[in-house]
Amino acid sequence: MAPTTQIPKNQWYVAAYSAEVGEDLLARTICGEPIVFYRASETGQVIALADRCVHRRYPLSKSSRVGDTIICGYHGFTYDSGGTCLAVPGQARVPRTARVKAYATHEQDSFVWIWIGDADPAPVSGIPRAPWFASSDYTTVRGREPLKARHSLLLDNLMDLSHETYLHGGYIGTPEVAQTPITTQADEEGGVIRVSRHMDDAECPPFYAKSTGLTGRITRWQDIEYFAPCLYQLHSRIAPAGVLPPADGRPDDQAFHVEVGYALTPETETSTHDFWLVARDFALDDQWVTDFLRENNREVVMQDVVALDLLEELIAADGDAYQELSISIDAGGLAARRLIKKLLEAS
Amino acid sequence: MAPTTQIPKNQWYVAAYSAEVGEDLLARTICGEPIVFYRASETGQVIALADRCVHRRYPLSKSSRVGDTIICGYHGFTYDSGGTCLAVPGQARVPRTARVKAYATHEQDSFVWIWIGDADPAPVSGIPRAPWFASSDYTTVRGREPLKARHSLLLDNLMDLSHETYLHGGYIGTPEVAQTPITTQADEEGGVIRVSRHMDDAECPPFYAKSTGLTGRITRWQDIEYFAPCLYQLHSRIAPAGVLPPADGRPDDQAFHVEVGYALTPETETSTHDFWLVARDFALDDQWVTDFLRENNREVVMQDVVALDLLEELIAADGDAYQELSISIDAGGLAARRLIKKLLEAS
Amino acid sequence: MAPTTQIPKNQWYVAAYSAEVGEDLLARTICGEPIVFYRASETGQVIALADRCVHRRYPLSKSSRVGDTIICGYHGFTYDSGGTCLAVPGQARVPRTARVKAYATHEQDSFVWIWIGDADPAPVSGIPRAPWFASSDYTTVRGREPLKARHSLLLDNLMDLSHETYLHGGYIGTPEVAQTPITTQADEEGGVIRVSRHMDDAECPPFYAKSTGLTGRITRWQDIEYFAPCLYQLHSRIAPAGVLPPADGRPDDQAFHVEVGYALTPETETSTHDFWLVARDFALDDQWVTDFLRENNREVVMQDVVALDLLEELIAADGDAYQELSISIDAGGLAARRLIKKLLEAS
Repeated sequence: MAPTTQIPKNQWYVAAYSAEVGEDLLARTICGEPIVFYRASETGQVIALADRCVHRRYPLSKSSRVGDTIICGYHGFTYDSGGTCLAVPGQARVPRTARVKAYATHEQDSFVWIWIGDADPAPVSGIPRAPWFASSDYTTVRGREPLKARHSLLLDNLMDLSHETYLHGGYIGTPEVAQTPITTQADEEGGVIRVSRHMDDAECPPFYAKSTGLTGRITRWQDIEYFAPCLYQLHSRIAPAGVLPPADGRPDDQAFHVEVGYALTPETETSTHDFWLVARDFALDDQWVTDFLRENNREVVMQDVVALDLLEELIAADGDAYQELSISIDAGGLAARRLIKKLLEAS
Repeated sequence: MAPTTQIPKNQWYVAAYSAEVGEDLLARTICGEPIVFYRASETGQVIALADRCVHRRYPLSKSSRVGDTIICGYHGFTYDSGGTCLAVPGQARVPRTARVKAYATHEQDSFVWIWIGDADPAPVSGIPRAPWFASSDYTTVRGREPLKARHSLLLDNLMDLSHETYLHGGYIGTPEVAQTPITTQADEEGGVIRVSRHMDDAECPPFYAKSTGLTGRITRWQDIEYFAPCLYQLHSRIAPAGVLPPADGRPDDQAFHVEVGYALTPETETSTHDFWLVARDFALDDQWVTDFLRENNREVVMQDVVALDLLEELIAADGDAYQELSISIDAGGLAARRLIKKLLEAS
Repeated sequence: MAPTTQIPKNQWYVAAYSAEVGEDLLARTICGEPIVFYRASETGQVIALADRCVHRRYPLSKSSRVGDTIICGYHGFTYDSGGTCLAVPGQARVPRTARVKAYATHEQDSFVWIWIGDADPAPVSGIPRAPWFASSDYTTVRGREPLKARHSLLLDNLMDLSHETYLHGGYIGTPEVAQTPITTQADEEGGVIRVSRHMDDAECPPFYAKSTGLTGRITRWQDIEYFAPCLYQLHSRIAPAGVLPPADGRPDDQAFHVEVGYALTPETETSTHDFWLVARDFALDDQWVTDFLRENNREVVMQDVVALDLLEELIAADGDAYQELSISIDAGGLAARRLIKKLLEAS
């Protein structure tokens, strides 16, 4: 019996930011698979190969790149960018089976996506979009935190923002977030969960007060879209209290829009790459706002990281002696779990 | 099949010193159960709650205390001092099953005792007494060391004081301790083991020479009482050689009495809270003696901690490839093990 | 079912250099067995006893040596150099079964060999020789590195020197090592594998150029003899290109000879004592050459240690999801594995 995995295979996952992949060999474990990434000299395409030499398991990421080939640092097995072995030591003939897996990749909206699974890659047209992260109409700050907690803990966290009031009080949380009911919509066919919380007359938390300059009460909308398994988007709209989007389709230019994104990529069964991004459509060139949002959002992310790392430790320590209890605010999280379960069964 | 435990349940254990529990939330794992402790504002009673929110396992000890309630730091589930959930985010109705376990506690002789187990608490009148630790007729020094070794290793250690000669030479050990035979008496019904070693003409170890001022040979009595599973007492009587207690019941005022206590509380299957206390009925206000006994006894305790932590590492490393060999000095330790085994079978 | 071991028992292994064993108690785990070593006062013989007191498992190596006896540091059980218990605390009679295992040892060629296994020791005449390491005709440098990798990873490494080109480029590797084919001869009966690589016109690597003073191309012979399971020898001959050994039996004095030795002793299933030695028959008194070879060879050894420790980590992390692929250069390593397998089946 194979060990139970909680990681859906035959899916596209975010492996890196585009800017992370260049000339140097980059080692990263995605969904339990050790992979080496680099960018092809001529085409600029992102190459992703299994990070274990076929000979004696040595990591190609600890080896030398010569042109677009990698020469294994232990015995010199040499691979091209398609994973085919071109040369081995001590003999002219290269065994036919000498090849490492080459992964399909796709770059879009500042992300490098990778196909994990043995099936043929699904069409890249199905990869969810997040155009603002690569658009000049927005200014984006971002980061990547190593999370020593499983994918489902981060997913739980993001699907229920009522925790902002408690874990992120003084940053993005105010009493209204926990008090305002949510609406949840699950598109199981399309693999998307939508959770909305519209606060019509709310306190403005420091995160938004300092970045927008708003001083009074606000209308605050949080519209979550989760594209399982990897991409999470929080469409955030902030405006003075009472200011709604124009009904006639004119631009919503009395409001501030912040697009918060997370890519949740399992590193192993119990650790996760936590990619986070914050794009705004205002104060585009204001460096102070950029620095403030980067610093402030990173602190919020780290508050989650500390809490989720702790929960992962507790799971390891407590064993099965825990039965959780869910309430209305968990509707989004539970719907997301059902989606993941469906993807697991299909993979 | 449940994993085998070596921790008897349905027992009173020492969880803390009374002085450790106050306004702040105190996290401590007792017998494998994570618990948060605090003292009620009005009654001063020690509150002990399961340290895991029912919602998503977050530790209440990492949360906020407001009055006598705890508000979970993750999503705001709010508990009263009886463990009942009073409020949850996003909805008015609190699920009926939203409650964390509240433990029975009892304060006595400077200790906070806690009842561990699913059965109703046994009457507190059955908790063993050690009145000297809270009496003005004695001066007490004490400490608590985290021991990375199982309860049975500390119990073995304490039940056979012949190790004082070797592990604690220069502190409390002299050749006579190892040489003098012991008498052992097991009261299995009452759950008490008594081990006595009466040395009539013994060298005075530095621990007693410096604290009492005795300079010559001594009569040294060691009378152990072990109240399974948690409380260990060593009634120690030191007097000039030949000075016995008056036969006619007059006060034994030619002798120095030291009451050494240990509370051995399992933290997990392989770690233990090592509470230790030394009470004396002489030089009550002599700060030098107080400091000397505190420092000296802590060094003795740490010699044990180092040795027992090492033994626990060896158990982990060696696996089952070890068969121990017992001799006469082990009578007390073996009797104590039988008692623990009996408690395990009953729990 | 006993856990599968990869360590052949009923074999002689190198436990230490002779110079490491003296008056002090030396703790070392050999083939998973914790052992304490010391040298007898009168005979100078190396004593090797199981490093666990029979009473409560305390390590004798943390105890006191008095004459040739060891007095356990916990309760004073006293053992003679044959492992027999002479005294216990609190009673005159010593239990007959109170004895720790005494291991057979044999000193030869600067090594302390120890017999691991329950069978009677095989005759010491069968222990492989390496006389140069204790001969005044050679100057030897040596070391011992703790390797956090299993025996088979070090064996693989040493049996295939084509890795010198990649892992040790700039030290002992040159392109010719990887390019030149090998001849392999397995003497399964005698328990010896021989692998030879004779390069007739090769670049001289810095390791040999700086130590011999040779400046041009060289004839470089690498003749490996592996005496399973523990002793590995590399007979290295370096001479100006074209200079072969005299056919008429005259001394091969136009060549430089370097005897490289490794003793590969399992510490546990996944860690190894990596003893290494380099003996030379030239520049015997040249301290600069001695220092250079010691430093340089240690760096080469550490390059292997880093690589093999990494492979051991990958084995632990990757689980069974790896199928290695062998080629011609692996003939020696595969023959060595077959030999180990045979020894395992016999033990």
